[in-house]
Formats: sequence, structure tokens, C-alpha cells
Amino acid sequence: MRKIAAVIGGGVIGGAWAARFLLNGWDVRVHDPDPEAQRKITEVLGNARRSLPSLSDHVMPTEGTLSFHETIAAAVVDALYIQESVPERIDLKHLTFTAISEACSEDAVIGSSTSSFTPTELSSQQANKSRIMVCHPFNPVYLLPLVEVVGGTTASKNAVERCVSILTEIGMKPLKIKKEILGHIADRLLESVWREGLWLINDGICDTETLDDAIRFGFGLRWAQMGLFETYRIAGGEAGMLHFISQFGPTMKWPLSKLTDVPNLDDALVQKIADQSDAQSDTYSIRELERIRDTNLVGMMRALKAQNWGAGSVLANFDAGVKAAIGCPDMSGLVRTIARTVPLDWLDYNGHMNEARYLQAFGDATDRFMELIGCDADYIAKGGSYFTAETHIRHLDEARAGEVIKIDTQVVLGIGKKMHLFHLMKAEDERVLATAEHMLIHVSLETRKAVPPAPHIEAKLIEVAIAHEVLPVPEGMGRFVGQGR
Amino acid sequence: MRKIAAVIGGGVIGGAWAARFLLNGWDVRVHDPDPEAQRKITEVLGNARRSLPSLSDHVMPTEGTLSFHETIAAAVVDALYIQESVPERIDLKHLTFTAISEACSEDAVIGSSTSSFTPTELSSQQANKSRIMVCHPFNPVYLLPLVEVVGGTTASKNAVERCVSILTEIGMKPLKIKKEILGHIADRLLESVWREGLWLINDGICDTETLDDAIRFGFGLRWAQMGLFETYRIAGGEAGMLHFISQFGPTMKWPLSKLTDVPNLDDALVQKIADQSDAQSDTYSIRELERIRDTNLVGMMRALKAQNWGAGSVLANFDAGVKAAIGCPDMSGLVRTIARTVPLDWLDYNGHMNEARYLQAFGDATDRFMELIGCDADYIAKGGSYFTAETHIRHLDEARAGEVIKIDTQVVLGIGKKMHLFHLMKAEDERVLATAEHMLIHVSLETRKAVPPAPHIEAKLIEVAIAHEVLPVPEGMGRFVGQGR
Repeated sequence: MRKIAAVIGGGVIGGAWAARFLLNGWDVRVHDPDPEAQRKITEVLGNARRSLPSLSDHVMPTEGTLSFHETIAAAVVDALYIQESVPERIDLKHLTFTAISEACSEDAVIGSSTSSFTPTELSSQQANKSRIMVCHPFNPVYLLPLVEVVGGTTASKNAVERCVSILTEIGMKPLKIKKEILGHIADRLLESVWREGLWLINDGICDTETLDDAIRFGFGLRWAQMGLFETYRIAGGEAGMLHFISQFGPTMKWPLSKLTDVPNLDDALVQKIADQSDAQSDTYSIRELERIRDTNLVGMMRALKAQNWGAGSVLANFDAGVKAAIGCPDMSGLVRTIARTVPLDWLDYNGHMNEARYLQAFGDATDRFMELIGCDADYIAKGGSYFTAETHIRHLDEARAGEVIKIDTQVVLGIGKKMHLFHLMKAEDERVLATAEHMLIHVSLETRKAVPPAPHIEAKLIEVAIAHEVLPVPEGMGRFVGQGR
Repeated sequence: MRKIAAVIGGGVIGGAWAARFLLNGWDVRVHDPDPEAQRKITEVLGNARRSLPSLSDHVMPTEGTLSFHETIAAAVVDALYIQESVPERIDLKHLTFTAISEACSEDAVIGSSTSSFTPTELSSQQANKSRIMVCHPFNPVYLLPLVEVVGGTTASKNAVERCVSILTEIGMKPLKIKKEILGHIADRLLESVWREGLWLINDGICDTETLDDAIRFGFGLRWAQMGLFETYRIAGGEAGMLHFISQFGPTMKWPLSKLTDVPNLDDALVQKIADQSDAQSDTYSIRELERIRDTNLVGMMRALKAQNWGAGSVLANFDAGVKAAIGCPDMSGLVRTIARTVPLDWLDYNGHMNEARYLQAFGDATDRFMELIGCDADYIAKGGSYFTAETHIRHLDEARAGEVIKIDTQVVLGIGKKMHLFHLMKAEDERVLATAEHMLIHVSLETRKAVPPAPHIEAKLIEVAIAHEVLPVPEGMGRFVGQGR
């Protein structure tokens, strides 16, 4: 039987809920009186189709069927899960829940995207309050896993568990909130930053860009992987959370924020926080947490570097400076195309550099060589490039995280559309780690077909190829897999 | 001439400053009366050596020389840059700045790691206030780029610019703050979250783990790449920032936070925010910002997935469920080892899946095949595994982001220590994208030498190899690079 979800209210949030369910193979039935709803949902769905499948290393299920319905009743009648995302007005919420309740099945779960109302308020006019709860997601809902699930005192434990199970099934992280409160957890934290941020803008301390930068180049990176308390646990070090937190009593009186109503950080609260922090994190020592944090930061910042964005653009600019300082190597002999450290995120379960990262380094060596003969970013932007057609790699020794690796490049053949390269990868102590042999073909990026390179590139390639003719034939060249030594 | 930085106060923060400078090739002179300082700095330096070089795609400069000095004067005398990180007591800061000022060179830059004092307060007792400024970093200082640079009304513009230039040179993102204020920018935002968080714990709404999860599975991920205002700009959509922000006037009166002193969100402030947001972000349309955000999130979440941490563990758990549902394929014919989508972060400048990602997919296919013959995580944990010795890849067609790719695996030879595999990668429409031929050798992870696999693995491998003997020899097997068709 097909699994059916109903989405009531189809704006940015409702549309993204629809996308999450659809891409996880559910049929989705939408009700929204807005004549623009269909267009809006289609746009959100386009974004979701582009990005959500990237999160999995498996094929997503066949996309479900999306349908639009004139009435709430028609949308919810067969739905296992119903998500309400109508505007944040309690009268509208009540009307919506009444219409849902009248038509939906007894054991449907009804979630609300609200940040402004509690489950008690939402369900106050319904006879059956047990299946109504807050399921508050975060934009973009099709990517961010968090959903705050608040059952309050009205939803049944059973319904909350069914809800958690369904949301987990569509790849989310349902976070059960013990007590109901306006704004739940995350929006209260966001609201505090928002209010303080408004003061900073209002008072001309900084502009919006500076404020954003103060987040994304610093604590925002930390919070993508550990929250407030686990981060402070590390900052507290071996002295422990109790000691660390207890220091902050006096600072609560400081005007560190314009928001001045503060809790009393007395011994009881300090002890409560320390106990909860122990329960949360004490499977890891502070040293382990530091290393986990650092490896996470390296991985995320390198991911941002690939997009040349935020903290990643700082890394990219730094590297551009290094590269400019290196300058162009001599190309009459072997060409030093790469000298780099093996980063933490290049390791695999065997404790060494993963085989794909060898090819990443060799591919970077090829890119660098291309650039040196004139096939640089400008040339590529004009529509010419080299594609690798064939590769042979010998893995001769292991490389570990933090080790320096160097690649020297030899031209075996360079004429017309063809460029045949041989890369030699060595460790800092000259140990040979690997070799790679590549046949590349020059292509038009428009037609994706082989075409000759621009004359200045072919001339430079031939010049290097002729210079390299006197070099010895590299050991391991022309091998096939499984050939004897 | 060697570049010299002086670090006054060598705790977690001072030690990390020392590490940043050292690993960027500067000599670092430390003064700290704490007898434990040397041990503490060595520990921080260990963490930094492990992780900081991972951020660059080039070799870091040769590490500078670290030395410890009995007096402030001896540490600062030849320093171009001096960073003060002593405890947050103004009397101590004043004594420290006096000692620094007496001994340092006229054009040295003096930065303070303080979050509690302004440049005016820090420099109040010094004749030369022009070279003293706040340079407030974020833990871990050796990785996070942000440093808030506050010159206030006392530091000279020239000194601030020299400071920015030096901090940029060591890979940081110096953020110039226009006006001095207690806590600068980031710590005021952090303090607001901290205070609200304390209320939530105090009132028993949630525990520390739930609060942390409410951050790191949701808005923390957003803030690693875009801050508060740019994120809200996207949420506002095409209607624009002015419209979006103006809606929030009434909510300022809501008890969405226990911190109740709020600015008046009047027309002037709304317009100010909208203007600043335009200046910050209007090189991109909302649609472009959405795609940038989504690609960043995919990349970062996949980086966390590789560590099985935070939002990445949600993805890993989701995939584990998918894999369990797939179950074990039939191995009597070609073995379907991979079926997946090409994720956004696997593309390169040629607009298609990067060659290294082909090998990543083929490597995953090998891993899956190993697992299917019993060389699984448990077996590997006991010390046996296969290493790839040799690889040959043919790139026959291009794969784009979002495309489904499938890999079928054939055993060419499987006996003793040797496993010779041939992978065929196809698109969803059966177009052949690439082939890969691998020779793997079974090793001991302890000795890193070739040894025979456990009998049950060899038996299973032989069983599959015998079954595969009747399959046709794969096209392209045994090729060397550059061989004619």
C-alpha cells in the first residue's frame, strides 16, 4: 500500500515538507487555497530534487505522486501523516485542525510547523487531542534534519512515537522536547540572537554583513557539529564542567548583552548543568572531543573551500597566496606539480590515505600541469579543456594524515588532442608512494567532443614534451593490471 | 629576517595563537609565569600540528622556533606582533601592557585576546595607545578563522591595517568592528544564547543535550556558512528583506525569550537592515543564494557523515537502513555493488563528476564486495583487510550531479592473497560511464604486509570466482594506458 502524507498549507515550509516526503517515496496530497501554491511547491521541489539525493550514498526510492486538493478533507482522508503549515494565526489553526480532525483516519499523526503555539493551544478545540503535536522544522526543510517534536500534555505517547518513527524514516532528526513553551527550544535561542543583533545594528556597532561574518567565520562553524554546552565543555578542559560553569556566576551581571533578565546561576543550576553535560558527553575525554571537533571542522571547512564560500574562501585565498609565492616551476625536467599535506579527511578505515584521494592528488597534479601550459581558468571559461580518458595507478606505499606528499610530472606524449602524462608521488623522505599514468584528450566544453587545443597550448605542450624526451622512461609505464613485475 | 611573534599568556588561547604563528613559519616567543605553560602549549601545538596543515592544499612553511622567556621584555623585544592573552583582570592587563610597551619596538602591533575590555580600557595607562587593539579569536584558534579586530578611538588606522595584514597572512579572517563595546559582536550574540539557554535548563524545558541538538542539527549548520541576516534574506524570498523584516515588529513584544529588553523595530531600523542586507548580498538573487546554501549544506553534512557525527550521523543511520533493506545481492552473476546518486560535491570545473570521484565510487564498490565475502567491519577490526595495489580506469562517458550511477562487479581472479576485480559503471539508461580494474592484496593491518585471508573469506571469494568463470571477459580488461582500441 502506498504511504500517503498530507500537507496543509504549501508555502516555503509546506512545500519543503512535501518534497521530503515525495523524495522518500511517499505520495503527497496538498491543500492550499493560494492559487500560487502549485508554482511555489514546484520551485521548492526543484531545489530539493537538486540537493536532497546528494545526502545519501544509495539511490532514493522512486518519487511519490504529488496531488493538489480543493478541500482539507480530500487531502487528509487516507493520510498516515498530516503536516499543517498554515499562517501563524490561532483562529486559522483551529479551523484547520477541526477540518483535519473531521476527515482524517483515527490513527493519523497530525504535526504542526508552528513556532508560535503550543500543542495545548493548537488542540484546544478538538475532541481528540492525542494525535496533535508540534513538529517544528528548519529551513531548508528538505536538507536540515532537525524537527522539534512537542507533544505537551495533550498528545499521546503512542502518537509521538509513531511521529518520531515516520520522521526518522524520511531522514530527519526528531528531537522530543519535554515541556511545551512558546518558541520551543531553537527559536528561543534564535530570538535571543535576533534581539541582540537588532540592538547591535540599531546602535551602529556593526552592519548586517559584519554581524553575519562574526557568526559564520567563528562560532557558527562550531555549532554545525557541537552545540553550546559541549563546546564549552571542551573550553573548560580537564578541570571539568562544574568548575568551568561556576566561573560564570559574576558575568551574568555584566552588560554583555542588552537583554538583561538573567537566571540566577547558583550552585544548584551549576550542578544541574554539569550533571547533564556529563550524561551527554562523558563517553569521550576532553582530548577526544577536541580531536573530534577538529576533524569535523577540517572536513566542513574543506567542503566550504570547494565552494569558495565563507570560511572556505578564507582557506582558498590563503592557498592562492601560497601558490603565487611558489610561482612557475622549471619545466625542462620533471615538473613539480603538487606538494601538499595529506589532510585528516582523506583517511579511510584502513588508517591511510584512501585510494580515491591518490587520484584526487594526481588529478590536481594534472590540473596544475594544464594550468602551466596555458589551459587555465580563463581558457577553460572560454570553452576548452582536457578530459581524462584513461588512468593507471600503482599503489606502492601508504600515506598517513599529516604526511607531506609531492608529485612530479613527466610528459610521455603531447601532440594534437592527446596529452599522455606520468605522475610520480613521493613522500617527504623520497619513498615512492604511487605512480599514475593518464591519457587526456582535449575537448570542446560546448560539444563535449575531442578538438585540438588552442595553438599556444599545443606549442607549449610540445615544447615540454620535447624537453622530456631525454628523461628516462618511467618505471611502471605501460603496465596493465595484474602484469608480473 | 625571521618574523617574530610574542605570545604573553600561554593558556588554551595563547597556546593556540602560538601554534598558528609557528605553523605559518613565524618564530614565537612566549612569556607565562605559570610553570605549566610549556606543557599546556605543547598539548595545544600537538592538536594544531594534527589539524591545521589539513586546511591547505600546499605544504605549510617550515615550522618556526618556539621559545619561552622569563620576562615580558625578553619575549617582546624583537617582535613584529604581540598577542596578550593573560587572565581577564584589568589590573593585570594594565601591568602587562606597561611591560610590553616599555620593551617592544615602536611599530609592533599589540593585540589582546580579551572579550571583557575595550581598547580604550586596555590602553588607558599607556603613552602610546596607537598600537594597542583588541584581536579577539575563537577556540580552536588554530582552526577557526575569525578574529574580531577592534581599534576603537585609540588605535591608529595604520596599526590596525598592519594587524589585519599579519593576521590574514597566518590564514585568519580579521573582522574590523567599527565601534568598541563590551563583548564586541560575537560574544554578545553568544551571551544572549547562553543566558536564554540557562533559563531553558533552569526551568526544566530541556537538558543540555537536547539544547545542543536543537543547535547542531538545525540552525548551527546554517550558520557555518551564512549568518543570521543572510539566512533570513533567503527565508524572506522574492518579497525582499524590507517586507520580511517589517513583519517582525509585533513579535518583539512576544515572550519568545525570557530576555525582555528589546529594541524598537520601527521603520527606520527596518530600512537600515534592509539597506545593509542589500549591500551585503544583492550580488546574488534569492534563488542563487538558496542553491549556494544548499550546496554548502550538502558538502558540510557529507563531511560530517564521513566522521559519523552530528547531522552526519543522521545521514549515516538513514543509509544503514536503506542498505539493510537492500540486503545481499545474488553473487552468482555480476554483483550489483553500488547504486547511488552523484552528489553535488562530486562535480568539478568541467561540470561533471570529477575523475577522483569515479575512483571513490569504484572504491566503495570494492568495499561493498569485500563486505559481501565477509571482509566486513568486524573482520577489519580484528586486523585483516584488502589494500588496492593497482588500478586501471577507462572514462567512457560523463556523469552529472543528480544522475544515478550503478556499478556491477566481476571477479577476474580470487585466490590466496590476490583479488582481481573488474567494475562496470553505468548510468540509469545503461550507458556505460566507466570501467575499473583493480588488483587487491589481502594484508595484516598490524604488519601492513601481505598475508592470506581467513579461510571463510577465501572460500567465499573462490566460490564467487568459480561462478564468474562463465561470464564473458569484460571489454577493456588488461588494457594499458594509450593502447589502441
